[in-house]
Order: sequence, then C-alpha cells, then structure tokens
Amino acid sequence: MSQTAGYEPTDRTVPTRSRHRASYDRELVHSILDEAYVCHLGFVRDGAPVVLPTLYGRVGERLYVHGSTGSRPLRMAGQGGGEVEAPGLAVCLTVTHVDGVVLARSAFHHSVNYRSVVVHGVARQVTDPEERRIALDALVDHVVPGRSLDSRPADAKELAATAVLRLDLQEVSAKVRTGGPDDEPEDLALPYWSGVLPVARRYGTPVPADDLDPAVSVPAYLTALG
Amino acid sequence: MSQTAGYEPTDRTVPTRSRHRASYDRELVHSILDEAYVCHLGFVRDGAPVVLPTLYGRVGERLYVHGSTGSRPLRMAGQGGGEVEAPGLAVCLTVTHVDGVVLARSAFHHSVNYRSVVVHGVARQVTDPEERRIALDALVDHVVPGRSLDSRPADAKELAATAVLRLDLQEVSAKVRTGGPDDEPEDLALPYWSGVLPVARRYGTPVPADDLDPAVSVPAYLTALG
Repeated sequence: MSQTAGYEPTDRTVPTRSRHRASYDRELVHSILDEAYVCHLGFVRDGAPVVLPTLYGRVGERLYVHGSTGSRPLRMAGQGGGEVEAPGLAVCLTVTHVDGVVLARSAFHHSVNYRSVVVHGVARQVTDPEERRIALDALVDHVVPGRSLDSRPADAKELAATAVLRLDLQEVSAKVRTGGPDDEPEDLALPYWSGVLPVARRYGTPVPADDLDPAVSVPAYLTALG
Repeated sequence: MSQTAGYEPTDRTVPTRSRHRASYDRELVHSILDEAYVCHLGFVRDGAPVVLPTLYGRVGERLYVHGSTGSRPLRMAGQGGGEVEAPGLAVCLTVTHVDGVVLARSAFHHSVNYRSVVVHGVARQVTDPEERRIALDALVDHVVPGRSLDSRPADAKELAATAVLRLDLQEVSAKVRTGGPDDEPEDLALPYWSGVLPVARRYGTPVPADDLDPAVSVPAYLTALG
C-alpha cells in the first residue's frame, strides 16, 4: 500500500452502524489527529478494559505516547525498539473532536457533529535513542508547534525516567458527522427549534508563571494559537 | 457507604503515578461528569481493547449510554433490567476536560491541566420502560439542559430501536491537575517563556436548520449555554 492510498479497512475498522460516516482517507485521519493532542488510550488489564487520557504526537505514520517508566501501560508494553522484538501492548487509541450539538425536533434524532479517529494496534516501547528524541520533540510540538526548539531538551536523567510507546497507523478509521438534524418529514412542522449549536476549542490569554522573568515575552508561536 | 461519602478506592482506581492528583470525592466526580457529554467508552472484544466516543447522561449514581440495538457494545451487553440478571459488559468509561496547556522551561515538565473521571464497572441493558425513559431524557438534557421538555419524545418504534446501558458509579476516581509549571530550580533563569495557555469549550451562535420555520426563535436554554 502506498503512502498516499487510504488505510485498508479491516473487520474491526468497518463500523456496524453509520457506515457512510466512516472514512479511511489518510489526509483526513492525519488532520483529525493533528488538531488534537489528548487521546483516550484503551488497553486490557486482568481481562478488563482501561481507558486513560494521555498526550500523543504524530510523526508520519507513527503515533507516540509517553509516560513515566513506572506507569502501568508503559510497563505492560515491555521493551521493543526499532526492530520490535517484544510482545507489546494491544491498544485502541481514540481521538475525538466535538464540532456541534445537533438539536432535532425529535429527541431520538438529537446528535453531535464530531470527527473521530480510532487506531487499533500493538504499542511497543521505543528504545532507539534517536527515535525517542524525535518522538519526545513531536509530543511537545504536537501541543504547541515550535515549542521543542524553545525549551530545554530532556537530560539523561529525564530521558531515563521517560518511556515512549509507538503505535503504527495501519488499522485506522475516521468517522465524521456534519450538517444539520435529520428530522422525520412528519416532525418538520413541530414547534421546536432545530439546528446546530457549534462547539469549538478556545484558547485564552497566556498566563505567565509566577516566577517568570517579566523580560521574557509571550512567544509568537503561542499567540498564533489564540 | 452513604451517598455523601466519597467513592471507595480500589486497586484499579488508585493510580500508580501522581497519586496526589487522584480524588474520590463524589461532588467533584459529579461536576466533571456533568460538564461534559461525550465520554470514551472502552470494552474488550476478542481479547482486544475498543474505545469509542459516545454521549452519556447521569441520574444520581447511575450513568447511561445509548445506541442502536444493532451496535456492537450494546449487543454485547446483552439483556438485564432493574434486577440485573445478565452478565453485562465490562467497561471503562472515561471523561476528560482539558483546561490548559502547561509550558515549562524544560521539555520534560510540559504538561496539561485537566480534570478526568474514570469509571470501571459492568454495563447492563436497561429494559424497564420507566427507567429507559428517564435515561433517554437524561441523555438529551445532559447535552442541553431543559431540551427533553422541548422536543418530541421517542415513539414506540424509536424506543424499540434504542438500547440503553446503565453503569453504576461505584468504582470511580477523578484526577485533576491545576496550576503552573513545575520547573526545576536550576531551570528558572532559562530564557524560555513559561506558564499556562488556558483552554476551554466555546459555543458559537446557534445555526437554525434549513427547514426551520423562521417563526421559531432560539430558545432561552440554548442561548444560556453560549
């Protein structure tokens, strides 16, 4: 499969419902992933599901998450570097944007406009120092583009305390709902307001740290986000 | 345990990391749950984790999610009403608010201010008609308070097509990070801006449906959200 082709649908990336909303388009998936920075990472522990919010970064067709070497999912993912010899951790990584609340005349047809990406796969610990460095920069730059060049890089002690997991974008789907309510024809004359209440993320004014030297001004990459 | 006491910590609701950020306070948990309406629901299928975004509602110490009777998790949860006889579906339901991006002088100490709730438990299908009605109203009112009274209730056919799952709030924890960056003392003089970029949800101006009668004005409960 070429880099420009879409992701190959699999049994678990084809939804049982609302198939018309599913997409395997690479650019759409990337754009949804790049607009967020908190994902919900699911894994199985003692047979039961666990879902935790965590930051992530993307480098091409690879997603990275990180955490303390003492954290549960990172310990469970074991070792495994560029050559990937470890069993790894089966995960499902999901990213969701809510773009609007959809109010229909009928309670039944209420909905939400959203864009989501679901990635299935096996996450493995990255041990290669160069890939770890790239991943950690990507994690910072994913939240605030350009920030990795304007902060102190991790030192040896910090690197030793940080585990990085990689999840390749292979079994991936996006799902998107847009537009207004889908009311039943016989409901259109009902006296209830219907339409969409748009929802978006809003950045506020940057709040400097209490101990920040007042001579250090807010960087342009930060005001660009507002 | 009384209704006012906190949730009892269990092995899986006590985090291995950042324990000082964990809370079992009932009011805090409720407030985090009530401010969002999209959760990430995790379950296990064929031994692998699945995480899907979905709407939810809360009625006291019960969470409800709903979906088509044909959807995978709802089919998997099987039957089980008020007396709960079915095996149900082991789930982890997670809700996360991002309140700010925390920029430290060091890449390592970059973080996010957030409030999250993680609920572990077994979700079971609700079959009692009265509880189903309460749950469906709660799902609509959770997104737009007051809306269930200002829309057409579900009819028999719509009710038959809708499955409702209940998840009791028993094994629950919240996790909260607030405040500025935790930089190392030796980094404080570095020339990098540090502080918090606030993040919040913003509602836009309601967009009426194309086929809405212009005589129907935007209801007060909607403008109250903006």
